[in-house]
Amino acid sequence: MSRLFGRTLREPPSEAQTPGHQLLLRAAIARPLATGLYTFLPLGFRVARKVEQIIREEQDRIGAQEMEMPVLTPAEYWKETGRWDALEPVTFRTKDHGGREYMVSYTHEEMVMHHARNEILSYRQLPAIVYHFQSKGRDEARPRAGLLRVREFVMKDAYSLDADEAGLERSYAAEHGAYVRTFQRMGLDAISVESDTGAMGGDLAHEFQVLTEVGEDTIAICENCDYKANLEKARRKLPDTAPVVEAAKAAPIATPGVTSIEALEALLKRPASAFLKTLLLRTPKGVVAVVLPGDRESSDAKLRKLLDVPQLAFAGDADFAAAGGVAGYVGPVGLKARIVVDASVERRGYVAGANKKDTHLDNVVPGRDFADAERADVHDVKEGDACPKCGGRLRLARGVEVGNIFAFRTYYADKMNATYLAEDGTRKPFYFGSYGIGVSRAVQTIIETSHDDKGIIWPFSVAPYDVHVVGLPMNDEAVRAAAEQLVASLEQKGVDVLFDDREESAGVKFADADLIGIPFRVTVSKRSLQSKSVELKARASTEAELVSQDVAVDRLVDIVRRAREAAAR
Amino acid sequence: MSRLFGRTLREPPSEAQTPGHQLLLRAAIARPLATGLYTFLPLGFRVARKVEQIIREEQDRIGAQEMEMPVLTPAEYWKETGRWDALEPVTFRTKDHGGREYMVSYTHEEMVMHHARNEILSYRQLPAIVYHFQSKGRDEARPRAGLLRVREFVMKDAYSLDADEAGLERSYAAEHGAYVRTFQRMGLDAISVESDTGAMGGDLAHEFQVLTEVGEDTIAICENCDYKANLEKARRKLPDTAPVVEAAKAAPIATPGVTSIEALEALLKRPASAFLKTLLLRTPKGVVAVVLPGDRESSDAKLRKLLDVPQLAFAGDADFAAAGGVAGYVGPVGLKARIVVDASVERRGYVAGANKKDTHLDNVVPGRDFADAERADVHDVKEGDACPKCGGRLRLARGVEVGNIFAFRTYYADKMNATYLAEDGTRKPFYFGSYGIGVSRAVQTIIETSHDDKGIIWPFSVAPYDVHVVGLPMNDEAVRAAAEQLVASLEQKGVDVLFDDREESAGVKFADADLIGIPFRVTVSKRSLQSKSVELKARASTEAELVSQDVAVDRLVDIVRRAREAAAR
Repeated sequence: MSRLFGRTLREPPSEAQTPGHQLLLRAAIARPLATGLYTFLPLGFRVARKVEQIIREEQDRIGAQEMEMPVLTPAEYWKETGRWDALEPVTFRTKDHGGREYMVSYTHEEMVMHHARNEILSYRQLPAIVYHFQSKGRDEARPRAGLLRVREFVMKDAYSLDADEAGLERSYAAEHGAYVRTFQRMGLDAISVESDTGAMGGDLAHEFQVLTEVGEDTIAICENCDYKANLEKARRKLPDTAPVVEAAKAAPIATPGVTSIEALEALLKRPASAFLKTLLLRTPKGVVAVVLPGDRESSDAKLRKLLDVPQLAFAGDADFAAAGGVAGYVGPVGLKARIVVDASVERRGYVAGANKKDTHLDNVVPGRDFADAERADVHDVKEGDACPKCGGRLRLARGVEVGNIFAFRTYYADKMNATYLAEDGTRKPFYFGSYGIGVSRAVQTIIETSHDDKGIIWPFSVAPYDVHVVGLPMNDEAVRAAAEQLVASLEQKGVDVLFDDREESAGVKFADADLIGIPFRVTVSKRSLQSKSVELKARASTEAELVSQDVAVDRLVDIVRRAREAAAR
Repeated sequence: MSRLFGRTLREPPSEAQTPGHQLLLRAAIARPLATGLYTFLPLGFRVARKVEQIIREEQDRIGAQEMEMPVLTPAEYWKETGRWDALEPVTFRTKDHGGREYMVSYTHEEMVMHHARNEILSYRQLPAIVYHFQSKGRDEARPRAGLLRVREFVMKDAYSLDADEAGLERSYAAEHGAYVRTFQRMGLDAISVESDTGAMGGDLAHEFQVLTEVGEDTIAICENCDYKANLEKARRKLPDTAPVVEAAKAAPIATPGVTSIEALEALLKRPASAFLKTLLLRTPKGVVAVVLPGDRESSDAKLRKLLDVPQLAFAGDADFAAAGGVAGYVGPVGLKARIVVDASVERRGYVAGANKKDTHLDNVVPGRDFADAERADVHDVKEGDACPKCGGRLRLARGVEVGNIFAFRTYYADKMNATYLAEDGTRKPFYFGSYGIGVSRAVQTIIETSHDDKGIIWPFSVAPYDVHVVGLPMNDEAVRAAAEQLVASLEQKGVDVLFDDREESAGVKFADADLIGIPFRVTVSKRSLQSKSVELKARASTEAELVSQDVAVDRLVDIVRRAREAAAR
């Protein structure tokens, strides 16, 4: 420790946003070079390497082949799928001095597909899963919480190539299983949830989420069955639709200056569910009106997917004018726009905007007073909603996405004209999946979910060292000699030891040991040597015990051997 | 092999420039994604990993600490040393959407120095050597020969931090020793040569060069002593200076239309050494005239270093006019410019340009007829020159630079104000060194220097697999069963096996085995099974032998164990 590059900090830097972020910095696991750009210091690097090795072993176990694609990826392949433009807002680009363009790679789907169309000629070469660990660039507007959201990180990204849908299902299931084992081995309690495919394309996806307050995702979880979904994708069981209620003719009501659901509730003394809200959005294909019940929030993710846009844009003044809408009083009746009706809108009378200043319409009935031809689920699920599978109660929880898997079917192969010679002599497109785990986010999530108020408590499988040996005091000849002898014996038997050889006080050394969080601490002190023993304490335990010097090495080697066997499972 | 991602090629692609480049592509070691951007396919990745692991073990052995810095590096640190501008022509840059600038890192000296000034407070934390494996971007104008010169590659770069010059010398020597062992272990016959520090700054540097015709560097090697230097840095022992020869007064001679040394030799019937040539260069600090003997070529590298410019620029018409020089007839006499005289110019009469059209001057004597105040060694060494150490004969050879080491003293610390608290209570700058090895260039160099006309011959230490098992034919039940049993038994004992399970002809399979170059090939065939044996052949040997099935596994395990022990040394 006297030469360890990276110093521990007594106080958390002011920028630390979460308990884990504080510990990341205090324990010298990583340091920022700039916003969202981190260096793994030697202690943290050892953790990252162990995380990486667990991922590798589980990929290899399912027959995936490791390779390595570059960070700089030529624009031409991204352009084949349209992602060169689509990913522009979140990626870093560069040019060479000849003017050719490259992306600091966001992922590598296009690159794998390009290699596949050159390397795989025949169905005999399928299936194949390839993967690599490589740095990814993401121009995140708001990096946060240490390594949870950064601008550069190493991702393990795997890609499956199959001859048909059944093959893809097998590869997807194999990766799903590998992910379950991977996270379990690194001490993360990750659950698999249905997720949106977002910027990736395709139609089936799962995320592995670790539930923690510091997470930025929201997960809907059924309290009764196994349904779990990211809020971006979560559905709910809608109440049985009541028969269409006969309603009086739609009629204007004066609502001067009242432009929000809350204000309407107060003015008309009716619940939020009595109203319709209408969002006017601008898309490349024209203005779209989205109609939702007043007690429901729209889902950005569902709308982006429905409208096939990377970002939502609200309509401007010209759009309102063209559609015949009036801001604050917009409603579906008489509106000249494509109208999308949320699935939870019932076929009964609502109060809706009249497209006239200071006026709403009462008794507006979908399908009678405005077109109800395009229905879609575009609202967010709420705590207490009914599970779409079993009707049970849904709860919402915060989570960190530590892994994701996507089944694209032939989405990429079609766009990139990537085919192989099938057994029947025809050319067929590759069925494709991709599977990602961010190494540094996994490290940060382990810290977030495995610590106490004194510091990190590393799971043995990813701890930077097995044993932390503390000599107290180091200027005592007998202590130094005994401590050095212990370290040498342990290292000679393959135990990884962090040796606190500094001339610091017991307080400083124990505080650092708790902060850094190596699973087992062994203290060699003047006092312990008086009884020819050393003090052994597990980081996760409050109990310390004296172990005779004679058996200390054998005891520790045995503990480490057992812990390694457990970690390899 | 039936599922191996990456197919072997019968014929070398037309772009392949060297024998190793052909084999790199044919054996499916790597594939280009774009000019100078390569993917390591699974076979090649295994080689790269082994090369990396050898480098890692030798770094760890000298106490270096592994960490990981990002690829994207903020401009601010590069600007502290001036390299943001200096490296512009050879680097890739990017901006985030907020306009902040980053370099796809060229190396990481500035980043390490930034971390050091934050992490290392006191002399007690010194010395420290840190290193990482990370992708580097180089906007090479002419990528060449596969992985020999590329635009992105993984480099192991190590950095030493010391309290004083003696410490730096120890760190430098430790890295030098680590490099010797590293290259020896990976089967590269690398020699250490003095080298120029180039864009890195500092004043002491060595390169590790592997001599091969495909190299793009030229090395001067003494045939008598241990002197070895890159041509960019190589010196020679100058002949003893004859006493100054009395020469007649300088006098013009008519040389109409004669503007080259060759033409002057022909016209005046005198040897090239009778003339002086004068180069007029433009630098940010004004025009510089460089005067050399007519039989010597100027050294670009030595001139760049002397003039402190990244690129040489010849003077333009305006410069000639201002200096009073005439193109084709420029000479040092009367020239209004800073004059640098090459160390090999003797103090005797020469023929030089007269700065007047169609005219030269005879009997021009340095120091008498023009200023001889600034002397410098700015000429290239030639084959047959005298060694500067012992006077022996220098020969020139081509080489590939597989590693380089630099001692910077306090160059970076001074520019970045990076100091530590010294034992005497004062703040002192870090003594700094950096040490690089490119992983992919090492892989390509191994191929260039270890192959025959059939394919690669991997040194055991870096071979993608230990043993290549060939089943012939695979549609024979007995052969398939015996081959699968052999593979399973070997793998169970920790031997890495590439199994050619394809239904291909013996010709195709043996050609691929020779091409891919695994150290040991074992063939299980109908014929070998008739004598209850398998055929064993080392790739580097022409002899095959039959080994009884009973003992084949034990024999191979033993061979592999011995080879691994040898490779670990």
